[in-house]
Amino acid sequence: MALLKNGWYCAATSAEVGDKPFARRILGLPVLLVRDSSGRVQAMSDMCPHRFAPLHKGVRMGDAVECPYHGLRFDLTSGRCVHNPHGDGRIPDTARIPKFPVEERQEVVWIWPGDPQLATPDSIPDLQLFAPGASGRVAGCMTMQVDYRLVLDNLLDLSHAVYLHAGTLAPSRAKREVTNINGETSIRVNSVMRDVATPSSLGLYFPAARGDVHSHIEWMAPGTFRQGLTITEVGADPEAGAITRNAHLITPETERSTHYFWFHSRNRLADNQSIDEGTRAILSKAFLTEDEPMIAACQSYQAGREFFSLTSVFLPTDRAGTRCRRIMERLIAGQTITSTDRPGTAPEFREKQESV
Amino acid sequence: MALLKNGWYCAATSAEVGDKPFARRILGLPVLLVRDSSGRVQAMSDMCPHRFAPLHKGVRMGDAVECPYHGLRFDLTSGRCVHNPHGDGRIPDTARIPKFPVEERQEVVWIWPGDPQLATPDSIPDLQLFAPGASGRVAGCMTMQVDYRLVLDNLLDLSHAVYLHAGTLAPSRAKREVTNINGETSIRVNSVMRDVATPSSLGLYFPAARGDVHSHIEWMAPGTFRQGLTITEVGADPEAGAITRNAHLITPETERSTHYFWFHSRNRLADNQSIDEGTRAILSKAFLTEDEPMIAACQSYQAGREFFSLTSVFLPTDRAGTRCRRIMERLIAGQTITSTDRPGTAPEFREKQESV
Amino acid sequence: MALLKNGWYCAATSAEVGDKPFARRILGLPVLLVRDSSGRVQAMSDMCPHRFAPLHKGVRMGDAVECPYHGLRFDLTSGRCVHNPHGDGRIPDTARIPKFPVEERQEVVWIWPGDPQLATPDSIPDLQLFAPGASGRVAGCMTMQVDYRLVLDNLLDLSHAVYLHAGTLAPSRAKREVTNINGETSIRVNSVMRDVATPSSLGLYFPAARGDVHSHIEWMAPGTFRQGLTITEVGADPEAGAITRNAHLITPETERSTHYFWFHSRNRLADNQSIDEGTRAILSKAFLTEDEPMIAACQSYQAGREFFSLTSVFLPTDRAGTRCRRIMERLIAGQTITSTDRPGTAPEFREKQESV
Repeated sequence: MALLKNGWYCAATSAEVGDKPFARRILGLPVLLVRDSSGRVQAMSDMCPHRFAPLHKGVRMGDAVECPYHGLRFDLTSGRCVHNPHGDGRIPDTARIPKFPVEERQEVVWIWPGDPQLATPDSIPDLQLFAPGASGRVAGCMTMQVDYRLVLDNLLDLSHAVYLHAGTLAPSRAKREVTNINGETSIRVNSVMRDVATPSSLGLYFPAARGDVHSHIEWMAPGTFRQGLTITEVGADPEAGAITRNAHLITPETERSTHYFWFHSRNRLADNQSIDEGTRAILSKAFLTEDEPMIAACQSYQAGREFFSLTSVFLPTDRAGTRCRRIMERLIAGQTITSTDRPGTAPEFREKQESV
Repeated sequence: MALLKNGWYCAATSAEVGDKPFARRILGLPVLLVRDSSGRVQAMSDMCPHRFAPLHKGVRMGDAVECPYHGLRFDLTSGRCVHNPHGDGRIPDTARIPKFPVEERQEVVWIWPGDPQLATPDSIPDLQLFAPGASGRVAGCMTMQVDYRLVLDNLLDLSHAVYLHAGTLAPSRAKREVTNINGETSIRVNSVMRDVATPSSLGLYFPAARGDVHSHIEWMAPGTFRQGLTITEVGADPEAGAITRNAHLITPETERSTHYFWFHSRNRLADNQSIDEGTRAILSKAFLTEDEPMIAACQSYQAGREFFSLTSVFLPTDRAGTRCRRIMERLIAGQTITSTDRPGTAPEFREKQESV
Repeated sequence: MALLKNGWYCAATSAEVGDKPFARRILGLPVLLVRDSSGRVQAMSDMCPHRFAPLHKGVRMGDAVECPYHGLRFDLTSGRCVHNPHGDGRIPDTARIPKFPVEERQEVVWIWPGDPQLATPDSIPDLQLFAPGASGRVAGCMTMQVDYRLVLDNLLDLSHAVYLHAGTLAPSRAKREVTNINGETSIRVNSVMRDVATPSSLGLYFPAARGDVHSHIEWMAPGTFRQGLTITEVGADPEAGAITRNAHLITPETERSTHYFWFHSRNRLADNQSIDEGTRAILSKAFLTEDEPMIAACQSYQAGREFFSLTSVFLPTDRAGTRCRRIMERLIAGQTITSTDRPGTAPEFREKQESV
């Protein structure tokens, strides 16, 4: 198992979750997401504990959802079965659906897939985006067919940008000065490229042909990145530049596929919707047609072999990614595996199957 | 192994089997089906014992089939090689193809995939359909990408119909009174829904808007269901109603996919072909677009885990399905595994490979 | 492992390899093939030893290739990293790419995927084709989704041709007289079919309706076949006939898929390009629409079971194929497994991963 269950992950953007249930697989678990009648987001297993039917295909009935297969109804808040339409209508104690702790902040729905007792909303990171309205905001979501750890590696070593993203996000083959600042469960990587050609993505609102590009990216376990990316006149103070604040929220879908949510906000020409569109187009192109195929190709050549077993060439630019892998290994080793993916295996569900 | 080989299964409808060999996978075995020159159905392994070529692609030559790869010819009745076109033409003793016991009854071709010594044609069930000509008959066949046991569960608990098939086969959310009658290797489930809206499928020939719906469905191991489904005026005697007699014949294709043959006959407006067409359309829709996707979704969430290991919620409506699983487990545990899927592993085939 | 690494295989035709790198999987290994500035073919692992990126997607820079992910540059001749664009530019000793011995002969690029110390160019077979220019030549390449051993079997037992290839390569159901001549790591199979209908493929340049067809085919381990196929007037001297010389070069792509390169040359109407086209069409049809589907069907019925475990029917026509399997088993058992597929596992790569 290479997944950390005890952590806050982005389950969805606020805009994705409405009155109609929808399902998304998160850390291998099928999760139903929906707003209750008070507008609060509820997250629970999408698997009916009776015969494993997908609950999100059922009918919403007030603050309950009716299973589409045999009609059991489950309360969205408690997860308990509140109606058995068959026979004498008795409701077995085991007819409960695991609920997931969920918090909605800054237009992100955060989920804790692990032990609910350990969920600590205070540890949900502030994404530090520019506030909506005050600044141009663009967001997107995709699912990559790759191991999430290769996505963390990718974001922790931006030295790839001047090769893979020359033409979209970065100047071609420019030099980058890098400084790492390590935390217990976080890593900050600061870098600057001086006097380089303005990348297409920043050129949408930064008019000079050349500039200094400053990046401050911070990973917080398990899957949150927040990034300040700034371009200034050559030699100028970054505070005076075209400043963007970004978030990259990485949520494993399974052990081999990854949801990638991204958010972008800027301080210049914030009301210009054609710049929003241009930004969306360039970032989508970079993530979907440059990053994903490359990461998938690397994963294919890795061929299921454990990363460190391959004793690959190590460069100083790999320090942050390697440290991140070691932090994740330590956190995963320390977690107690919970059983939210199996109806009936948690202690309170162990009532014996009625004999027939 | 979760398949019972020693049992009679529907291999095909009579109409499917003609002079030209065709192949169908049954309990994982590739089976060639064809009529010999006397019109009798013959069933044998489709795999040439020489190099494993698919015999059904070969040329039919009288009551033999010629292998399409190297031209060995095999007799349809005995399975023995009757012609080796190469060299001195000597025919090795091992050049034989396993034959399967097969019986044709009531327009169904029954096969016994297990030990031929144990095949007992007397145990082939009478489907109790109305006779053709006397009544409207409709039949169909599909292959579902699901474990056959989930199909047995589905048919043994018709409480799902008022949810999954509301709009086709059943009234929405109606109450059903259920009685089970258990046999050693069979289960009968009788049920009635009183004073309910007439379902679309029965409304084709029952004019009242409401009625009582009686179902008598009987499972006989391993995969035969016969079902009387009747609608009457509210409170009336079922014998006076619109009576249908149905069969559902469930044959595992592999451990993860299932052939589903169904047959329908009725006592009313039996000569009306547009009712035949309407019935075919509604039943096909229900089985293909309602049952199969739901069962496949449940199987996907079950994720390969053994059913009972999941200690799912047990409802009284699950009694018949659970008992059926226990009967099948017992029958499977008691069977001697035969080797009809491997050329050369039966004792008479164990002649040593000629040394070269 | 059922692959012999220590042997010469066809990696590509000369025409396929140019200045732009391309990748082909050979014996499971991703191989980059390219010509250096002197025109010499170079073959090396396509997998960057840093993060496993596919090097053939990188930029060619003189006699080096730049990794498309992080920009390391590798020399085509030595495989060594010659440029690290990051930080202080230090190049780790481990930044080397395994090279494969490669030889270009008779328009074929030969590769040795195993231990380079054992590569012996002298053992590359002369294909004995008619020289280009002097005779009509046609060639083709395809990748079959089948175990290479089933392709060897196919070519070593041409008795299948009068069934599978009646209509293209062979007369229908004709008798063939066969003689085998065994070598240590080679097998020659000579055969003749007397007074048979002229096959379509030979009828393109042999006008008589009937003739004698002589075949001399020789397998040389691991995957080379050269074949003289001649048609003469009935009873005439083969030397006076329409003579073709052919090569079939069989290279495992993986354990379950196979590259098939074929070459054809003839002594009659050698300048007639419409005969070239006709030959290409018939041979392609035979290999792609007759051989591959049949071999794939046999493999499907074999269902992953080891061939000899199935104790299939053995015919005298199977002698050459069976002997070939035994020779390959012996050679594979005797080989030392090398590690060219893993960066860092060869002794010189075992430098410790830098600690972080």
